[in-house]
Amino acid sequence: MIVVMRHDATEDNVKNVIQAIEYCGLTTHLSKGSEITIIGVIGDKSKLSKVNLELFSGVDKLVPVTESYKLSNKKFHVGPSIIKVGNCEIGGKEIVIMAGPCAVESREQLLESARAVKKAGAQILRGGAYKPRTSPYAFQGLEEEGLKYMAEAREETGLAIVCEVTSIHAVETAAKYVDMMQIGARNMQNFQLLKEVGKTNIPVLLKRGLCATIEEWLNAAEYIMSEGNPNVVLCERGIRTYETATRNTLDISAVPVIKSKSHLPIIVDPSHAAGIRSLVPSLSKASIAAGADGLMIEVHPNPSCALSDGPQSLNPEDFSKLCSELKSLIKIMGRSFNCHE
Amino acid sequence: MIVVMRHDATEDNVKNVIQAIEYCGLTTHLSKGSEITIIGVIGDKSKLSKVNLELFSGVDKLVPVTESYKLSNKKFHVGPSIIKVGNCEIGGKEIVIMAGPCAVESREQLLESARAVKKAGAQILRGGAYKPRTSPYAFQGLEEEGLKYMAEAREETGLAIVCEVTSIHAVETAAKYVDMMQIGARNMQNFQLLKEVGKTNIPVLLKRGLCATIEEWLNAAEYIMSEGNPNVVLCERGIRTYETATRNTLDISAVPVIKSKSHLPIIVDPSHAAGIRSLVPSLSKASIAAGADGLMIEVHPNPSCALSDGPQSLNPEDFSKLCSELKSLIKIMGRSFNCHE
Amino acid sequence: MIVVMRHDATEDNVKNVIQAIEYCGLTTHLSKGSEITIIGVIGDKSKLSKVNLELFSGVDKLVPVTESYKLSNKKFHVGPSIIKVGNCEIGGKEIVIMAGPCAVESREQLLESARAVKKAGAQILRGGAYKPRTSPYAFQGLEEEGLKYMAEAREETGLAIVCEVTSIHAVETAAKYVDMMQIGARNMQNFQLLKEVGKTNIPVLLKRGLCATIEEWLNAAEYIMSEGNPNVVLCERGIRTYETATRNTLDISAVPVIKSKSHLPIIVDPSHAAGIRSLVPSLSKASIAAGADGLMIEVHPNPSCALSDGPQSLNPEDFSKLCSELKSLIKIMGRSFNCHE
Amino acid sequence: MIVVMRHDATEDNVKNVIQAIEYCGLTTHLSKGSEITIIGVIGDKSKLSKVNLELFSGVDKLVPVTESYKLSNKKFHVGPSIIKVGNCEIGGKEIVIMAGPCAVESREQLLESARAVKKAGAQILRGGAYKPRTSPYAFQGLEEEGLKYMAEAREETGLAIVCEVTSIHAVETAAKYVDMMQIGARNMQNFQLLKEVGKTNIPVLLKRGLCATIEEWLNAAEYIMSEGNPNVVLCERGIRTYETATRNTLDISAVPVIKSKSHLPIIVDPSHAAGIRSLVPSLSKASIAAGADGLMIEVHPNPSCALSDGPQSLNPEDFSKLCSELKSLIKIMGRSFNCHE
Repeated sequence: MIVVMRHDATEDNVKNVIQAIEYCGLTTHLSKGSEITIIGVIGDKSKLSKVNLELFSGVDKLVPVTESYKLSNKKFHVGPSIIKVGNCEIGGKEIVIMAGPCAVESREQLLESARAVKKAGAQILRGGAYKPRTSPYAFQGLEEEGLKYMAEAREETGLAIVCEVTSIHAVETAAKYVDMMQIGARNMQNFQLLKEVGKTNIPVLLKRGLCATIEEWLNAAEYIMSEGNPNVVLCERGIRTYETATRNTLDISAVPVIKSKSHLPIIVDPSHAAGIRSLVPSLSKASIAAGADGLMIEVHPNPSCALSDGPQSLNPEDFSKLCSELKSLIKIMGRSFNCHE
Repeated sequence: MIVVMRHDATEDNVKNVIQAIEYCGLTTHLSKGSEITIIGVIGDKSKLSKVNLELFSGVDKLVPVTESYKLSNKKFHVGPSIIKVGNCEIGGKEIVIMAGPCAVESREQLLESARAVKKAGAQILRGGAYKPRTSPYAFQGLEEEGLKYMAEAREETGLAIVCEVTSIHAVETAAKYVDMMQIGARNMQNFQLLKEVGKTNIPVLLKRGLCATIEEWLNAAEYIMSEGNPNVVLCERGIRTYETATRNTLDISAVPVIKSKSHLPIIVDPSHAAGIRSLVPSLSKASIAAGADGLMIEVHPNPSCALSDGPQSLNPEDFSKLCSELKSLIKIMGRSFNCHE
Repeated sequence: MIVVMRHDATEDNVKNVIQAIEYCGLTTHLSKGSEITIIGVIGDKSKLSKVNLELFSGVDKLVPVTESYKLSNKKFHVGPSIIKVGNCEIGGKEIVIMAGPCAVESREQLLESARAVKKAGAQILRGGAYKPRTSPYAFQGLEEEGLKYMAEAREETGLAIVCEVTSIHAVETAAKYVDMMQIGARNMQNFQLLKEVGKTNIPVLLKRGLCATIEEWLNAAEYIMSEGNPNVVLCERGIRTYETATRNTLDISAVPVIKSKSHLPIIVDPSHAAGIRSLVPSLSKASIAAGADGLMIEVHPNPSCALSDGPQSLNPEDFSKLCSELKSLIKIMGRSFNCHE
Repeated sequence: MIVVMRHDATEDNVKNVIQAIEYCGLTTHLSKGSEITIIGVIGDKSKLSKVNLELFSGVDKLVPVTESYKLSNKKFHVGPSIIKVGNCEIGGKEIVIMAGPCAVESREQLLESARAVKKAGAQILRGGAYKPRTSPYAFQGLEEEGLKYMAEAREETGLAIVCEVTSIHAVETAAKYVDMMQIGARNMQNFQLLKEVGKTNIPVLLKRGLCATIEEWLNAAEYIMSEGNPNVVLCERGIRTYETATRNTLDISAVPVIKSKSHLPIIVDPSHAAGIRSLVPSLSKASIAAGADGLMIEVHPNPSCALSDGPQSLNPEDFSKLCSELKSLIKIMGRSFNCHE
């Protein structure tokens, strides 16, 4: 960390800051410039937690130079992490596609979806049993009943299953059924929930919060990992901006940025990012081309009757067509796609 | 709701949409223009939950014309709500000031803070016992021990107390101690938590999410109210924008906008909005002038040693000075301030 | 357009609105609902310019249902536009790559850049002679001297040339030299400048403003086209959001959105979007995969000595490598790349 | 400036950076930490313009510690600037109110507006003769004819006049008529235009760009001032965010932030910020309470017939009422308001 002093700081101001830092067991390096004086802080920053240097007289600002996340940080990890979910490996050579309806609505709807996405080439079935909805009057999910249908769909198709969890109670219940638990965008900083999934050893799909910075996202991963669960996969799903032509703005740059900062795998959810069915194929291709390790795509057997997020769901035919188109792209990106041909 | 058809929609497309709407038990009004055809939907929109009109052939878009929140909506409520917290009334003539440290750090720190803010004129003591922190390695709060110090401070000073709750477990514990529970910005769409505080009859201070729209915020209030707890006070605390000169951007317009849409009281937290101590007095005055019903201000007996958010905390002297300055402003706004003079 | 009345609007309020609309020569359709009354407006909205319906008693809001741009609108144009620049065609089957330094710094620097980008496969040379810089103390460009070097580079290499224009004076000067004029992000709503390039018949590269919506961007194109110049190519270059990990946030969805709304070609500038050299290859691939018609990439023979935007410039070797990698991607996208192999 | 080295930087990397800095005539201070090495750069940063340190091997990032604006910077100026416009002084004790219609539409409309705002207490008449409009098909202003009406209104009422200029041609024409020239939000980074008004000695009202940071805004002021015109008044008018309840988000914090960084006066335009007439009184009061030096308010004799921005215009009665209400607020803020009582 660097302490930048105000241009009108006195000698005494500087001395006081240095004393406080050294008192905490750290060392300092002083640089006096013509316009500005800066003090470099050498050592473990957490020792400074007892003093607020920003409030010392003469201090202009503090400039952090190291990241606050450690376990999710690429600097302290050899090679990329590969996370095993069911029979799939996310973060390795294979591109993994998760697909299925936004919400589990009925046994039939789910099984039909599962068969369709399996046939098209998906490896993981998605389906929401606990739905976080903006309005309390909107459909809230089938809860445990939905999880049972998911498990039945796995039984029949061999697909691994991923479900969102929205409370500690849901974590306990879902743990009995699912291969992967999803933390949704709205809960990315629900730290109690992060800790709870961190206490399991079930892989976690951590969606980026609607206005989370990449640094906050990696810190959220850190909450999970610091509880003992290293199996975290990140999912970019669009951020909130001023643009209203799409539901959210897909931050495609997050893919290479995460690859440069973290060893964790990252997939993209173009369905929630766009909120518009017709944009999903373009954004899926863009995501793979940018280096994503997989995709999460909403597929519904009958989108015009979906209880949640129908406008962004593909029907099975369109999803199947998209998977075919992705195959050649995945190949030239040097990745593989275990399509059931 | 209005259904806008695409300019190339056929007669059949229009017929299908009308049939679907009428099948759900609603009535329609058709308007054919030279460029565009629109279909007005008359009746209770929730009956349409089984069809996704956006996906019908020929449909361009749906335009909602009524709000999804009802209980928090001004249209369906006579006069403003007044929420009683301890001996204070929020939303009436009185301006209520909540003040205290960001985090409860020790018995001494809290009692010293409580005496200071009481003396300056605050009616409610704030203090965090459960702290949601971006990094898992930052100070996380004293939990129940902190709540006990809060209750002791109330005993001594007569101040009502407000504490953030971050989990269902915290709600259960806090319910034994506090006069008001706070839902923090990061949990504004933690719907399980909203429902939980909705099941109590303890007043709730609902902070606006970091990138929540005003409509989402009122829907979050709706989650609490629809469980049976009508005692909700809204708190604007800054939203996330591209500007980095302040920690967040205080959306001062939210005050009159909320007053035009809802009967719930609204207060402002200038400390978290700005993140910079020196801006707090200006923003406090602006908030009162804009029509806010109160303020929440961070005060720490020794900001340079605060374990959380020190840079934005006022010391007791500055807080006392601010309260004095606010008095004349509050008066000309036609409000009152029960300052202990 | 649709007029939504307030729920407490009286019969008279509704009558007055209808009279005003019909007085302007338009017709109306009235839909009365249980909660809300709406009035559809049929006909040419511009006739309403004399009245502000939003201000009539009882009016809640106006909802536009048609776009304000016509010439750039896909609805009123058969097939995509193909814009000829030098010997290239943008918007057809071919993917066009524009490359070169951010700023023209010297004859040698420019010629060296031109040879390198030509060799790697670029068809158009970019280079700024008029530089809009945030600070008045930063390098402002070589102006006409820079244009002369650009023309010389075209002479030698056969590349077409594109230069930014920042004033009416610059338009006049650049018109003598360039094959395409660029309107930069900061000038996207400099309407005088848009009109001025609209009066020429030189192709225009219209960059998206830093916080422009897609609708505003297409309206900016409309300014150029309505003056008589139909040769507009759009360029997505990142928008401003709260995320600071990249200089701007590349709005990759803008590519398919523009394709759905307009017949104009769209290219992407990943260099300015990211602001970080190492992200340019990933974002270039993502752009092509999303359906872009071309790319604009900063290439500098010696990025560490560039006077402007060095951190985001590729060196010739990296650019050449990227072009090779793009070839197979372009092919599977069904497009062609006239690489000099 | 501070150079932060990557944690894997070699001794040679560090040496090369130091050599490059010292080669440019600057001195360095080296701080080696356990995790990180930093190099402080001492001296005039502009000497570094020939090298891009960010691109040197082993460099992680550069951290600027001083601002790029000098003339608008409070650090290098004694006391606040007071700008004289007609008979008013902006930035002194007096609160100055500019009011009038968004666009000059006719002689009658303007004179009527001028008399009304004069009577209510405004000191400066605003009115647009050159209108930057999103769509080329919207009303574009009366140009010089409008300026003549403005001058006539000054003649009759004694009000000073301010008009927006949108091109170099408009600057030349307006210079013959107006007391103050306005640079609109869309032109805040039209650097040619900034330089042009900088060459006059007419006071300039510089509106903040729609997504400009405070630092960019002060750099835009620097463009004007560095050409020789020190008479700049800043105007906050709302920034673009994700929130759609208001047209823009008024960044009220910009008022105290500007006061902390610059000696220039700052006023607020609540009409454009909100875009909704009913919010203007609250936001006007908030602005004065936050420390603004004045207000710019849209007033139209008949808002429902305004050709531009009618929904946000006050009628003369409401404006007069607002001015009365502001009087007592202005007084308790320790400012004065030369109201014609």
